[in-house]
Amino acid sequence: VTEAEFLQRLRTLPLHPGALGLRDDAARLGGYVLTTDTLVEGVHYLATDPPGDVAWKLLATNLSDLAAKGARPAGVLLNYPLRSGAAGWDDAFLAGFAEALAHFDTPLLGGDTVSLPAAAPRVLTLTAIGEDAPAPPRSGAQAGDLLYVTGTIGDAGAGLAIARGEPGPAALLAAYRRPQPRLAAGRALAPLVHAMMDVSDGVVIDARRMAEASGLAVAIDLAAIPLSPEYRDFRGEDLPARLAAATAGDDYELLFACAPDAALPVEATVIGTFRVGSGITLTHAGSPVPLPESPGYQHRA
Amino acid sequence: VTEAEFLQRLRTLPLHPGALGLRDDAARLGGYVLTTDTLVEGVHYLATDPPGDVAWKLLATNLSDLAAKGARPAGVLLNYPLRSGAAGWDDAFLAGFAEALAHFDTPLLGGDTVSLPAAAPRVLTLTAIGEDAPAPPRSGAQAGDLLYVTGTIGDAGAGLAIARGEPGPAALLAAYRRPQPRLAAGRALAPLVHAMMDVSDGVVIDARRMAEASGLAVAIDLAAIPLSPEYRDFRGEDLPARLAAATAGDDYELLFACAPDAALPVEATVIGTFRVGSGITLTHAGSPVPLPESPGYQHRA
Repeated sequence: VTEAEFLQRLRTLPLHPGALGLRDDAARLGGYVLTTDTLVEGVHYLATDPPGDVAWKLLATNLSDLAAKGARPAGVLLNYPLRSGAAGWDDAFLAGFAEALAHFDTPLLGGDTVSLPAAAPRVLTLTAIGEDAPAPPRSGAQAGDLLYVTGTIGDAGAGLAIARGEPGPAALLAAYRRPQPRLAAGRALAPLVHAMMDVSDGVVIDARRMAEASGLAVAIDLAAIPLSPEYRDFRGEDLPARLAAATAGDDYELLFACAPDAALPVEATVIGTFRVGSGITLTHAGSPVPLPESPGYQHRA
Repeated sequence: VTEAEFLQRLRTLPLHPGALGLRDDAARLGGYVLTTDTLVEGVHYLATDPPGDVAWKLLATNLSDLAAKGARPAGVLLNYPLRSGAAGWDDAFLAGFAEALAHFDTPLLGGDTVSLPAAAPRVLTLTAIGEDAPAPPRSGAQAGDLLYVTGTIGDAGAGLAIARGEPGPAALLAAYRRPQPRLAAGRALAPLVHAMMDVSDGVVIDARRMAEASGLAVAIDLAAIPLSPEYRDFRGEDLPARLAAATAGDDYELLFACAPDAALPVEATVIGTFRVGSGITLTHAGSPVPLPESPGYQHRA
């Protein structure tokens, strides 16, 4: 059973209308949006990642989903597994969690702490509730809309390679370990855009999801993918470097669809267009590029 | 680090006012109450428990926290771990989850599905959101209040022994595997009571928590603990049998403090009284009973 197959089966359960068919990053309930993410040791983070960075990432990935809805974080719930003999890890996690909560001005609402067998991988869950959200859906792109992305793409993917041992600059490692959810940009953009989501699994796969949800085709120009100076120094900016950036996960930038004549309140880069049809096409400086076999991280449902 | 110690440290983080100092079963946010529970395979349930019963229990334990607030379930979020080669377990879990959602008229709002290494114990998290809740606190008991409990006590603890292999009646096993959160009773009682919580870890430890939170002493008469006919047949009704019932977990009945002259809309049994002071005292037919070394399950924070 894959995550996608399981998700398909979850859709047969009694769903709340605010679940949006389990086809969005966040649920709606009253004036709130809700999102939850689970991180598994060895799957979503490396066992060697510093615990404070794991805490940061756990909060940041959830707040990134709120950012895509233009929401203000109202509070979070933490489900934390204690392993015996790991007091140092717990201390460092809590210190990083406290720092991240303060940084993003997000209070703790509650949670559950449980004991885990000593040899078990940690499974960390955080649920975030946001308020005052215009909540643009993932499915709202219109034919003729431009596809935009905030910030730069590929830095976190490069940082993962550095975390795994490849020598590289600290700025890229930090992009992987301490992602910055675009809360302010999300709030500014949400009332103007037709569709928005965060880039968690990679620009190519996430753009394809937005197009699918919207019932449209999307074309991406890889030459337009915004790369940081650090990324260009580290990986270059040729087609393979651009494909690597566009298929790496964990960027937590905002991907959105907007009318071509909209005046945007934040800096963002046009990387594609939506058209009538279905599927995704990639080009690079005018030439077609075959879709890579692995268009992004698919470990998350 | 114990769960209680970790919880103490969580209280030093930036807390939402609705977190009530992390001293209650549910958080308040706007017109909603929120609660979350994590079940760990081998800790909160047996690896041999039927998957459909695990799903039922995961939902029921959370809805029981909503029941203690007098809330109506608005929806739930499920964080589910997939293990490879466990498709049969996943199918049976989903079937039981569908049945439980329908039974408790509770829709799915969202969640997250992740992949777990094949050898790792499952860690299941559910978050429940309730609405229209009078939300009596755990801390509202007043000196002179009577301590009540709904239903009968000890059945689930006896059922756990049966699940572990001791021969015994199916009704007790069902009490352990398919607990019934007292949602209707909770809604009827919530406007009338001074304090309410669900019995998740045992009457003695949970009553002590209510007394502590309320800044009072509580005295429990073990002779008054309501036992089912099945429990009496299985364990008897002498002091050891009553102590076992009052210190076993997973009953998911409602424990509440109420003025002596209140007219109750549901059946419940008086098992104690609150007085000025602190601590808990146990008696049995007028004689003092020493507090047992292990007053209940303490695996949950």
